Amino acid sequence: MYDGIVQELIDEFGRLPGIGPKSAQRIAFHILQTPNFDMSRLAQLLSEVREKVRFCEVCGNVSEQERCAICRDPRRDATVICVVEDAKDVAAIERTREFRGLYHVLGGAISPIAGVGPDDLRITQLMQRLADGTVREVILATNPNLEGEATATYLSRLLHTLEISVTRLASGLPVGGDLEYADEVTLGRAFEGRRSL
Amino acid sequence: MYDGIVQELIDEFGRLPGIGPKSAQRIAFHILQTPNFDMSRLAQLLSEVREKVRFCEVCGNVSEQERCAICRDPRRDATVICVVEDAKDVAAIERTREFRGLYHVLGGAISPIAGVGPDDLRITQLMQRLADGTVREVILATNPNLEGEATATYLSRLLHTLEISVTRLASGLPVGGDLEYADEVTLGRAFEGRRSL
Repeated sequence: MYDGIVQELIDEFGRLPGIGPKSAQRIAFHILQTPNFDMSRLAQLLSEVREKVRFCEVCGNVSEQERCAICRDPRRDATVICVVEDAKDVAAIERTREFRGLYHVLGGAISPIAGVGPDDLRITQLMQRLADGTVREVILATNPNLEGEATATYLSRLLHTLEISVTRLASGLPVGGDLEYADEVTLGRAFEGRRSL
Repeated sequence: MYDGIVQELIDEFGRLPGIGPKSAQRIAFHILQTPNFDMSRLAQLLSEVREKVRFCEVCGNVSEQERCAICRDPRRDATVICVVEDAKDVAAIERTREFRGLYHVLGGAISPIAGVGPDDLRITQLMQRLADGTVREVILATNPNLEGEATATYLSRLLHTLEISVTRLASGLPVGGDLEYADEVTLGRAFEGRRSL
């Protein structure tokens, strides 16, 4: 539809996840028509990011160094490890400021449909981290969906043999939510996990 | 939240129009975690696009050459000019395959609130194109909103002195729409512009 390079730019933006053809066109024209909108930093980052970013050799989080900022921080509690599916989950939990321990990123969840088995996840590395006896609690923070629950069940069985307390994040009503609109599984979990006041 | 370059990448994507922090994070991680997802072409385009893309000196459409592909095409009908606000509108009209004439991109619409007056638009260039008498019809295809209507009214008064037929795109019910959900102004326009069958 457009002359060469403009169409190419739209097509390249359209390849990014969550960006359809209309959004891609809007972005491309915004860049073209806003004279002081500098995209040279994005251009530079896109060509550098693959070389510069690696995954923390301890926990699997994204990092620019061999060990990520959380694993390097001596103030973090090394006796608790929170197991998550993805590096994005680390950022989500960090935003709560509720957790001061370390993380372990599995790199996904067990899913027979997607062909992901336990050997595709960083489970061996987790077992190695638990071997020296420092860790006293493992919090399983995989997603509360079918794959995440299956992974949590698998891990809890595996960790059962070690003398480590294994916990799972609470399921229940989301804060600020409406009881009326909660799905029956969530509401059932909220009853199951009710606390005395 | 993330180590240096990852956060920078998220921030840069977040500056693009229509991309919030969550989408930016999703895009950044998609790039990081998909090994065969090559973004080097996008990096290259972003650093080149400003130099390579100019605006057609005749119609104001985006172009890689002095004159855009439409103005260069000898098969286009040079007696009809369709006046639009933006280069994106050219692409939208081209997709209909209904129009075989030429375009004129104003570069916006008259808007006292945004401080855009007639002198900020490519109206002088339009008058110059009409001077030699080749053009017999000018179709005003500015948006059917307050600013677009004001611009169309302004232009129709200006073109009144010339011996050129001035038309406006029809307003009415969108095809595939529901009469029940049409707003009263659109429905009013549909009545006003009713055709005999």
